[in-house]
Amino acid sequence: MALGLTQVIVARQPRVGIISSGDELVSPHVQPTLGQVRDVNAFTLSALVEQEGGVPVHFGIQPDRVDELLGAARQALQKSDVVVITAGSSASTRDLTAEVIDALGAPGVLVHGVNVRPGKPTILAVCAGKAVIGLPGNPVSALVIASLFVTPVLQVLLGLRRILPPPGVKATLTLNLPSQAGREDWFPVRLVASPQGFLAEPVFGKSNLIFTLARADGLIRIPADANGLQAGTPVDVTYM
Amino acid sequence: MALGLTQVIVARQPRVGIISSGDELVSPHVQPTLGQVRDVNAFTLSALVEQEGGVPVHFGIQPDRVDELLGAARQALQKSDVVVITAGSSASTRDLTAEVIDALGAPGVLVHGVNVRPGKPTILAVCAGKAVIGLPGNPVSALVIASLFVTPVLQVLLGLRRILPPPGVKATLTLNLPSQAGREDWFPVRLVASPQGFLAEPVFGKSNLIFTLARADGLIRIPADANGLQAGTPVDVTYM
Repeated sequence: MALGLTQVIVARQPRVGIISSGDELVSPHVQPTLGQVRDVNAFTLSALVEQEGGVPVHFGIQPDRVDELLGAARQALQKSDVVVITAGSSASTRDLTAEVIDALGAPGVLVHGVNVRPGKPTILAVCAGKAVIGLPGNPVSALVIASLFVTPVLQVLLGLRRILPPPGVKATLTLNLPSQAGREDWFPVRLVASPQGFLAEPVFGKSNLIFTLARADGLIRIPADANGLQAGTPVDVTYM
Repeated sequence: MALGLTQVIVARQPRVGIISSGDELVSPHVQPTLGQVRDVNAFTLSALVEQEGGVPVHFGIQPDRVDELLGAARQALQKSDVVVITAGSSASTRDLTAEVIDALGAPGVLVHGVNVRPGKPTILAVCAGKAVIGLPGNPVSALVIASLFVTPVLQVLLGLRRILPPPGVKATLTLNLPSQAGREDWFPVRLVASPQGFLAEPVFGKSNLIFTLARADGLIRIPADANGLQAGTPVDVTYM
């Protein structure tokens, strides 16, 4: 504006096709019956995609069957720049997602399983020149892994030349946090103001419990080479 | 969604009335003649307001005359939840803004001048129950001060109960930065990746030069009780 440049060329917003797979899933608008669970991932992932400048496009809830999942994935790949599939909760359906992604186009699955908790059963793939990412079905894992792997893909597609670290705030950890060495852990924490600056209070709970994210302000990372973090350690709390 | 709550009550987006004042200002769509300058603030402030969840509403470029500025300010106050006026560049027009704000409604101007650089001639006011903020005309100062004072107002109007610190990233300062003790300074820096983590490289230039912001990734704060910061100091870089 200062230079009178009132028109600039911008990147097209990347379209992200989102598929939720799992025989147990129903829409949040439907009352679940025994053994059913409401699909949360399609909504949390849409919010993440919008926040990062993309356009979420939904390709529905698909059952744990190769033909139907592959049909939806093909449609998503054709109509989107990136495809994200959240897996069903059982081990067998994870293999199903990998099988479907491999059938979508070459080179297919590049990485199956990452050394991150939560989120081990992650699939990173390229099919016919587009990124295809298989996320865990667990909503907490899906959101953490999407922050780590979907966000950078969107940043590149948006044309960002310099990828800055995700924003966060410095805080002091209030409790000892154990962690298995050799694996990167992400732990939800709540920020509490104190005269010495912000404190990071861990939010405990199994990683499949959504309240751990709902009650948290951000996540802290425990590096793979650490056995955990001691109370009093300065930590970077990454906003979600 | 997990609980089947598919409708929630949300806060209305706050409307922020934006007025640029100054006889020297012209629209960026117009070729400036001698002594004229393109109005940048209306656009940077609009972007900030949208980023923070508000809706910017423009009330034009107003000349340095009480009657016209007051007319526009009254209209803005009536049609907005917050009013932001960027001042002309001379000392006399700063008093003009304060005079106009005082005439808008009780209690009027609460603070005239803050101990922050850039941004000293800031006006904080409440008129008829609404926040009215007078910003410096200098585009860099206007944006820094709006981050410090307009953003929190929007967060409160949006119903945020817990105001978290603005997001940023930890980095190591590469050069000594002098600062006058007794005044809070905000300094633009560029982030450079290094094997030891991010480095914060100061972007030097007079505070009225927009390129200092254009080339920066964020700002670092030098507290009022410091004489400056030494090279090697760990700093928090606040994203803009």
